[in-house]
Amino acid sequence: MRRVKLKTLIIVAHPDVQDSNSQQFFKSAIPEDLDITYHYLNEAYPDYQIDVLKEQKLLRNHDRIIFQFPLYWYSSPAILKEWQDQVLLENFAYGVGEQALKNKELGLVLTIGLAEKDYQVGGSEGFSISELVKPFQALSKRVGMNFLKPLTVFQFAYKSESEQMRLLVEYLQYLTVKNFDSLEARENWFLSFLEKDRFETLDESAHFVLDQAIERIETNQMDRQELKMHLKNYEG
Amino acid sequence: MRRVKLKTLIIVAHPDVQDSNSQQFFKSAIPEDLDITYHYLNEAYPDYQIDVLKEQKLLRNHDRIIFQFPLYWYSSPAILKEWQDQVLLENFAYGVGEQALKNKELGLVLTIGLAEKDYQVGGSEGFSISELVKPFQALSKRVGMNFLKPLTVFQFAYKSESEQMRLLVEYLQYLTVKNFDSLEARENWFLSFLEKDRFETLDESAHFVLDQAIERIETNQMDRQELKMHLKNYEG
Repeated sequence: MRRVKLKTLIIVAHPDVQDSNSQQFFKSAIPEDLDITYHYLNEAYPDYQIDVLKEQKLLRNHDRIIFQFPLYWYSSPAILKEWQDQVLLENFAYGVGEQALKNKELGLVLTIGLAEKDYQVGGSEGFSISELVKPFQALSKRVGMNFLKPLTVFQFAYKSESEQMRLLVEYLQYLTVKNFDSLEARENWFLSFLEKDRFETLDESAHFVLDQAIERIETNQMDRQELKMHLKNYEG
Repeated sequence: MRRVKLKTLIIVAHPDVQDSNSQQFFKSAIPEDLDITYHYLNEAYPDYQIDVLKEQKLLRNHDRIIFQFPLYWYSSPAILKEWQDQVLLENFAYGVGEQALKNKELGLVLTIGLAEKDYQVGGSEGFSISELVKPFQALSKRVGMNFLKPLTVFQFAYKSESEQMRLLVEYLQYLTVKNFDSLEARENWFLSFLEKDRFETLDESAHFVLDQAIERIETNQMDRQELKMHLKNYEG
């Protein structure tokens, strides 16, 4: 990644985002931030006539590419496949010419109608999400991208408010945090988030709780640092 | 299968069959037979506006459904996905209403640009065809179909004439033979094929060779019968 700040492109494939609670939830969660581009394919290309050069330019200009879609028949809606076949051409995405996607990241944000327990051996669907997204993993490998752990959202409609809040945080981290799956990266993201926003959006009474949360996270980080040093001494 | 004779529907997804050697090869191989329906999606629906009721009727009227397509980005061309999402609706393909596809068969005929050796761990593609077609296997499971072993055609352009002939036989068996992956079923298909066609299409000098071939197959079958009986006696 040559840029200091991660630039993220969200490519959304969905027949009707306006009518989808989960897609609206994600859309409203995206911060007003020049480093995140929201790109809704079905709106841009209702007749599937894709502007290949424009799409290739968009890809060049971002570091983390997210495919966001509902899992239909164990894959994406057709428009995203059309997009792949038209945009990811030889000598742009692979081959001896430009390898425009090399060392970028590919992530998936999947909304899924059934429960997580159905996606495993013996479950009603019988296959895991890891098995079903192999074509995307293979694509990622072919063009030299780093494939991110998919963000899977099972049965959004049944989520409680606190589950939704947790999902919101996960989603924002998935969009913006480098190495988002490490505890330390997520903690640091929280710290910067809390310190930046707490005075603007919350009333006085909440400051004490936030201060406690920040202190707790920082203490945890220091504890882990110490443990690591101890372990190193033993090994040495 | 309620019908005595297998009725097969070939659903072809390809941007240009006219311009594809492998697709032309397959197309010309299909016998003039009312029990095989060739259905080229891109020609029927150039604008992706699929006639859902017509497609559902087609499906009801056949026993073996074949998806035939070139493997693009480890999956089918987009039109076949659009077809799945529009045609395989709840209460037609699954759910509490009609389960129109139940106990039918689903097969894949895949043309693939790279070599078979590339599709494995450590190969340039890194994933096997069995891994990559999981979404189709999951679809088949969901609607109660029997998923057939895919017929994979790697690098058609490089095939010698005798390899092409072998492929032709494989393809015809894939379309028409029940239990096509058993040796006995394939032998019987050969026998009926040889006995039916040899006098019509070949000159006298070839009859002797064909008679020999038929005799060899029949002897093999009798030998196997005998071996099975011997084994049964030992087990008893």
